[in-house]
Amino acid sequence: MTETPGPAHSQTLSRGVRTLEILAAAPGPLTIAEVATQLGVHRSIAYRIVRTLEDHSLVVRDSAGRLAPGPGLAVLARGVSRDLQSAALPELTELSQSLAMTAFVVMWDREECVTLAAVEPRHSGATLAQHPGTRHPVGVGAPGIALQSLYTPEQWRIQAPGQVYRPEAAEAARLGYATSHDEVIAGLSSVAAPVRIPGGRPAAVAVVYIRNDQDPGTIGTAVHAAASRIESALA
Amino acid sequence: MTETPGPAHSQTLSRGVRTLEILAAAPGPLTIAEVATQLGVHRSIAYRIVRTLEDHSLVVRDSAGRLAPGPGLAVLARGVSRDLQSAALPELTELSQSLAMTAFVVMWDREECVTLAAVEPRHSGATLAQHPGTRHPVGVGAPGIALQSLYTPEQWRIQAPGQVYRPEAAEAARLGYATSHDEVIAGLSSVAAPVRIPGGRPAAVAVVYIRNDQDPGTIGTAVHAAASRIESALA
Repeated sequence: MTETPGPAHSQTLSRGVRTLEILAAAPGPLTIAEVATQLGVHRSIAYRIVRTLEDHSLVVRDSAGRLAPGPGLAVLARGVSRDLQSAALPELTELSQSLAMTAFVVMWDREECVTLAAVEPRHSGATLAQHPGTRHPVGVGAPGIALQSLYTPEQWRIQAPGQVYRPEAAEAARLGYATSHDEVIAGLSSVAAPVRIPGGRPAAVAVVYIRNDQDPGTIGTAVHAAASRIESALA
Repeated sequence: MTETPGPAHSQTLSRGVRTLEILAAAPGPLTIAEVATQLGVHRSIAYRIVRTLEDHSLVVRDSAGRLAPGPGLAVLARGVSRDLQSAALPELTELSQSLAMTAFVVMWDREECVTLAAVEPRHSGATLAQHPGTRHPVGVGAPGIALQSLYTPEQWRIQAPGQVYRPEAAEAARLGYATSHDEVIAGLSSVAAPVRIPGGRPAAVAVVYIRNDQDPGTIGTAVHAAASRIESALA
């Protein structure tokens, strides 16, 4: 959402990306006029941007001419940590079935964790969805603690300036997994384990569930084992 | 990939999107010089584009400074047919488990079908992956026939200029599902049913499996029923 002017940045390109961000955040399709207002530009400029994005299938129009994110975005997103997605998917499937919980993998994006892929358990009453593209702050919840557990407080300060280092990270480093309760969403618990990525920032594999009597240790062991297998597949 | 010059298009924005397409198609991270070469621009222009895309987390650098698609793309892709994704996911999970096949939903993007979401069955020997973002030509395979089955040949000519209308579409319209064998990938079969989208182009729900003795009629009935439930959820 940052719009940093200056010679090292392109305003036109930034507006185009902002258009995609606006459409992705909207609850439904928007008119050109609504997009222009949110961008803070004249409608003719918004029209030019939208036409260009349409050429690349990143924006589509519905039968009323309103704008929505297009299928080309799914193709671009396929390239995000493709090796990690491929390595994680069978492990997420296995975890979700064996624990009967939604399993997901997050990437670390500066102040946030972004869900890259998720698998829900076999349809059995209430299932928690954790859609790809969901964000939550890195300082909240088990995935963030799991990421921190790979760093000392000093290293974390360099990796994530301004982001609090949580004391639970030391315990997570010892156990190989992190736990959280009532953090991102009240009533929900999460268990996560870090995944080291060759040449890149670490990721985390996690499960989320409605607080229950299951032993966090059993869950943690399973999540940690899945993370280890993903690491081996990436090595 | 089209780069149409003219007043209704923005060259800078188009280059930015091309950069994302180049990185998504690459087998691994690329250097700035490689991106500049593929874009056909001076390195300073490529650098400006990349810096802007980095600001939005659409591009990330690995520890060697090479460029890869960033997590922001997963956030943008979340907005693609969100209602369809939400309605389809439990049905895909159910289909994949009950049939022990990979189930997926495709969007129609001009000459291609794009996989929007996919669920693999419980880990049980060989599983076929069908990653979101995968494309295949609309003229090949069961999903394309399923889309065509909602149109007459005359309507299809208007909806998809230049795309062949397959005679199997009439049979698919009668049955409520389409089948294909050895089309997209040799040795694989697919069964698909169309999903009508209010105000938009239709989608299709499909399963893919290694050719076997299962009765296509049983599979088709299950896929058609899933498509009907997704339609009801969207209505």
